[in-house]
Amino acid sequence: MSYGHWGKALRVNLTTREITTETLSDKFLRRYLGGWGFIAYYLLKELPPRIDPLGPENKLIYATGPLTGQRVAGGGRHMIGAKSPLTGAFSGSEAGGFFGAELKRAGWDVIVIEGVSDSPVYLWIHDDQVELRPAEHLWGLPTADVEERIREELGDKRIRVSQCGPAGEKLVLISNIMHDATRAAGRTGLGAVMGSKKLKAVAVRGTQQPPVADPERLRELARWFREHYKETFSAAYSELGTVRMVRVNQGLGGLPTRNFQQGQFEHFEKIAVEAQKEITIRRDTCYGCPIRCKWVVQVDDPDRPVDPRYGGPEYETVAAMGSLCGVDDIRAIAYAGQLCNAYGLDSIGTGVSIAFAMECFERGLIGPEDTGGVELRFGNADAVITMVEQIAKREGFGEVLSGGSRRAAERIGGEALQYAVQIKGQEVAMHDPRVKYGHGLGIAVSPTGADHMHSVHDYTYGTEGGIDDLRPLDIFDPLPFDDISIAKARLVRYVMMWRVTYNLTGVCYFQAWTPEQIRDLVAATTGWNTSILEIWLAGERAYDMARVFNAREGFGPEDDKLPPRLFEALPEGPVAGKVYTQDQFLKARQAFYEMMGWDPQTAAPTRAKLEDLDIAWVADLLEKA
Amino acid sequence: MSYGHWGKALRVNLTTREITTETLSDKFLRRYLGGWGFIAYYLLKELPPRIDPLGPENKLIYATGPLTGQRVAGGGRHMIGAKSPLTGAFSGSEAGGFFGAELKRAGWDVIVIEGVSDSPVYLWIHDDQVELRPAEHLWGLPTADVEERIREELGDKRIRVSQCGPAGEKLVLISNIMHDATRAAGRTGLGAVMGSKKLKAVAVRGTQQPPVADPERLRELARWFREHYKETFSAAYSELGTVRMVRVNQGLGGLPTRNFQQGQFEHFEKIAVEAQKEITIRRDTCYGCPIRCKWVVQVDDPDRPVDPRYGGPEYETVAAMGSLCGVDDIRAIAYAGQLCNAYGLDSIGTGVSIAFAMECFERGLIGPEDTGGVELRFGNADAVITMVEQIAKREGFGEVLSGGSRRAAERIGGEALQYAVQIKGQEVAMHDPRVKYGHGLGIAVSPTGADHMHSVHDYTYGTEGGIDDLRPLDIFDPLPFDDISIAKARLVRYVMMWRVTYNLTGVCYFQAWTPEQIRDLVAATTGWNTSILEIWLAGERAYDMARVFNAREGFGPEDDKLPPRLFEALPEGPVAGKVYTQDQFLKARQAFYEMMGWDPQTAAPTRAKLEDLDIAWVADLLEKA
Repeated sequence: MSYGHWGKALRVNLTTREITTETLSDKFLRRYLGGWGFIAYYLLKELPPRIDPLGPENKLIYATGPLTGQRVAGGGRHMIGAKSPLTGAFSGSEAGGFFGAELKRAGWDVIVIEGVSDSPVYLWIHDDQVELRPAEHLWGLPTADVEERIREELGDKRIRVSQCGPAGEKLVLISNIMHDATRAAGRTGLGAVMGSKKLKAVAVRGTQQPPVADPERLRELARWFREHYKETFSAAYSELGTVRMVRVNQGLGGLPTRNFQQGQFEHFEKIAVEAQKEITIRRDTCYGCPIRCKWVVQVDDPDRPVDPRYGGPEYETVAAMGSLCGVDDIRAIAYAGQLCNAYGLDSIGTGVSIAFAMECFERGLIGPEDTGGVELRFGNADAVITMVEQIAKREGFGEVLSGGSRRAAERIGGEALQYAVQIKGQEVAMHDPRVKYGHGLGIAVSPTGADHMHSVHDYTYGTEGGIDDLRPLDIFDPLPFDDISIAKARLVRYVMMWRVTYNLTGVCYFQAWTPEQIRDLVAATTGWNTSILEIWLAGERAYDMARVFNAREGFGPEDDKLPPRLFEALPEGPVAGKVYTQDQFLKARQAFYEMMGWDPQTAAPTRAKLEDLDIAWVADLLEKA
Repeated sequence: MSYGHWGKALRVNLTTREITTETLSDKFLRRYLGGWGFIAYYLLKELPPRIDPLGPENKLIYATGPLTGQRVAGGGRHMIGAKSPLTGAFSGSEAGGFFGAELKRAGWDVIVIEGVSDSPVYLWIHDDQVELRPAEHLWGLPTADVEERIREELGDKRIRVSQCGPAGEKLVLISNIMHDATRAAGRTGLGAVMGSKKLKAVAVRGTQQPPVADPERLRELARWFREHYKETFSAAYSELGTVRMVRVNQGLGGLPTRNFQQGQFEHFEKIAVEAQKEITIRRDTCYGCPIRCKWVVQVDDPDRPVDPRYGGPEYETVAAMGSLCGVDDIRAIAYAGQLCNAYGLDSIGTGVSIAFAMECFERGLIGPEDTGGVELRFGNADAVITMVEQIAKREGFGEVLSGGSRRAAERIGGEALQYAVQIKGQEVAMHDPRVKYGHGLGIAVSPTGADHMHSVHDYTYGTEGGIDDLRPLDIFDPLPFDDISIAKARLVRYVMMWRVTYNLTGVCYFQAWTPEQIRDLVAATTGWNTSILEIWLAGERAYDMARVFNAREGFGPEDDKLPPRLFEALPEGPVAGKVYTQDQFLKARQAFYEMMGWDPQTAAPTRAKLEDLDIAWVADLLEKA
């Protein structure tokens, strides 16, 4: 037995219904650490290249990190991965809540789900009792109902459920996997992978505290956080939730508005903190976390009742369904967000796809004859809600949008593609690279497509925005937001690699743990004599493995690009008229590639780089492909 | 003012006699850290390529690290550098003792000495009172006498002296710079640089404790070491001194014997710990260090009196003058070692050059007619002593050997070069790569020529030799000594880079500080929120800068080679008959280059690597050259 990890993976074959247990060696655990690292390992080892992401050969991997399930702030996170049906690339998406901790407490570090069931099933894990159970009766139900039904039928209210919603069942490519009906592993279309396997849900109940090498040290760290987080940037999340970003980004000039045509939303006050406060009934939190960043909302409108079982819209949802669609009605936004959670839709992918359609509509590329009469105009909250429903059900124009904005643009044709604000087929989140140049580079090169979870927002938050949410290792000079020099590329490289380690360790990055504390947390938990250097290298290893996965699938430099919209200057606000050029971007990207030890021709890590990371087997795989 | 460093450099122009003070910015201090980092910075910035190392354009740089002069074990070290007259490459050689601490306590982090004096002078630094004083009366005197004379004439017994001996005055290329008459900055011929400048000595007296950010934490760490070092590998140095390595290397099968023709010395017991104990009168130590690894010897032989003012022979001297020359008389070895210290000769370079000559003599490449009648046969202790004297004075056959074994071989001609066990013109130290393959790779690529101070001896000390003297960051699998795979190349890369950081920080690597503690020491001293990652990157930065210095001087892959002897199998002992091939070596070297981010064509860091280390200016320099 290890500390921190259990050293145990569960393998479930849905085709054969075989359920087996595998041992994870100490070496494996230490080298790949958790989360994305584990996922990349399994995907590279077990998926042949060029498989159909919605076919039986794809695998769905649940992975925890050493801190998942530990009694410490941030220990509530887990990660899910597969080959993405949305991007065709590496997929890894993380979620908070309670599911990850429960899975870990059931004695598992990893679940590998393979094959396809011939009828809907759900996986029930009660410590080491594991079974597949029929799920016909759950198929098509909204997520909160599924959760209640499973708890009821298994007779345990403390069961935690990870599930695809109806959208995933219908193979919507911007679907997600929901947890606690409120926390999404949101990006890269994982709900469709789960749906394609006819796996309705994973229900888990764990009763074992994961083993810890130095419990006293871990308690000390947990205590430190409880006593001090209010003196850190975590305080802002605690006080204002994620929706605080509405005002922050508006202030910077980059609140994504009307499909990224603008960076200033004239009605931003109506979707900002104060507005959301009016419908908030309580705050919620994730396993072990004192921050309580989540705001639970309720609206008693009989037409659009907002049910607190679905939590409340986070910043990404508020901006994607709000300013990005020109909508200023927080209640309508909350309702649209709730639909996403109930159907299992990625609210970012959904909001951006709808905003894209609105722009196409306003520009006359599509009309009411295409949309079934829906007036897809910016500001039309009813249209947003209708579209969310239609996307989830793949009905009407929703069918067109259900594959995300890139596929929709290809179907619409003409100039539509230039309005699709996506990278590798995945929609850009609510952080505009035109105010945060580093973020642009980060999302362009991300193996998972436009992904704000590891792509540095901008280091200069620390100095300009007043919010140090990047724990920048204290080894960089502050650089202005609009710097796109090699120094910025370097900063993006280092901060992104560090960001990935949050995923590997199982820690949420809203917690103001310093790198030293992350190291201490991992050391206390695992008993390893570890270092920031080792953890950092694990992050780089995972990232590079994901890039190799993509290279094997045919991705190259031509896929690491930004959509045309992000090279258009914003018309107003603090950054009006300013934008980086393609040349500047490409130069920074080239520097990034080379600093990463990637071959600029293939945009994949060189053999030497992989050898340096002690994963020559990954280089062998790539050369074979 | 900074913490840890003073932020002050002293610049002394010997030609103009101008003495100026320069401010070192916080950014400079943090990026280059100290020691080798500072030296590489100054040499790259200030030396034009291809200068004569013994001409006025060369500069002699003294550099401290943040821990130099702090009240903590290991804080006694400083570093001296220049363009090496022995190798024509980057030179950096470190020394222990008290001089470095005294220099730091005088308020200086760095001294840059430039130009050439028209008559012998010495530099007298008393805190911020700095002057050049005449040194005609010291010229030609042995080092211990010079030290006494300086203390006398300045009226302060606590003055510390760094000096070239008579050998340096005579531009012997295997000369060194001596401190306290007992501690050498031994390698790369720095004594000749000092001699060429007619700078006899640097005398220093400092009365200021360097500023520390967190004195309590530093005291705690110092206390930890005093209380615990006996539980670490430092205990072995404390108990047995460095001479313990005689038995260790004999046991491994690689005690360099008869010019590396053998790895087993049949009389090793006569030069091992017990033998040295018989002539040892007390133990000595360096600034702040409780280990007391130094053994002071005395022999009252009227013909060869061994004077305790010169300390005693360390392992390197014992093996180089002893087994390597086939000499088993510890008293003769102690006397030869004393001559080295008195004349300012590098005992490694001297011993290996003499052993080389002995092999040439025995093989008939030279004869008594060349050596002035000296019977240069293995085992002839008298011949060794005679040769040491002659080398120091550049008299007789000593003139031939005074440029080191490579130059001597070129003069002798024929097959002689294949018996010269040197790399880049510098002699291999007393660690045979045929029992420690990683060491072979390390000394081949070292920018300073064969240099055991940063080239990993072998990680597997930790598992096989029982001596963990490498603090291997705990991120490597143990590998057998005779592994020369890519994994070993990677291990060499990581451990070497970490080794270089000891030099930068000013810490001696006989102290069993863990990487975490080194980080804590630097953090407590400087107040920086630093990390192993940052310190590690500083080490890599310094190493790469040294490689760029060499590339600019025309060094390439063809210079990163091992001498032919080290590809010949050892005839007896544990590794008899086993040896790596050129092919294996070249393959490991290639992997090392690529993992380091060096262009295999030039063996210099790529622009991207230098950008990654945030020193694009170094790439600019290289491209200009």
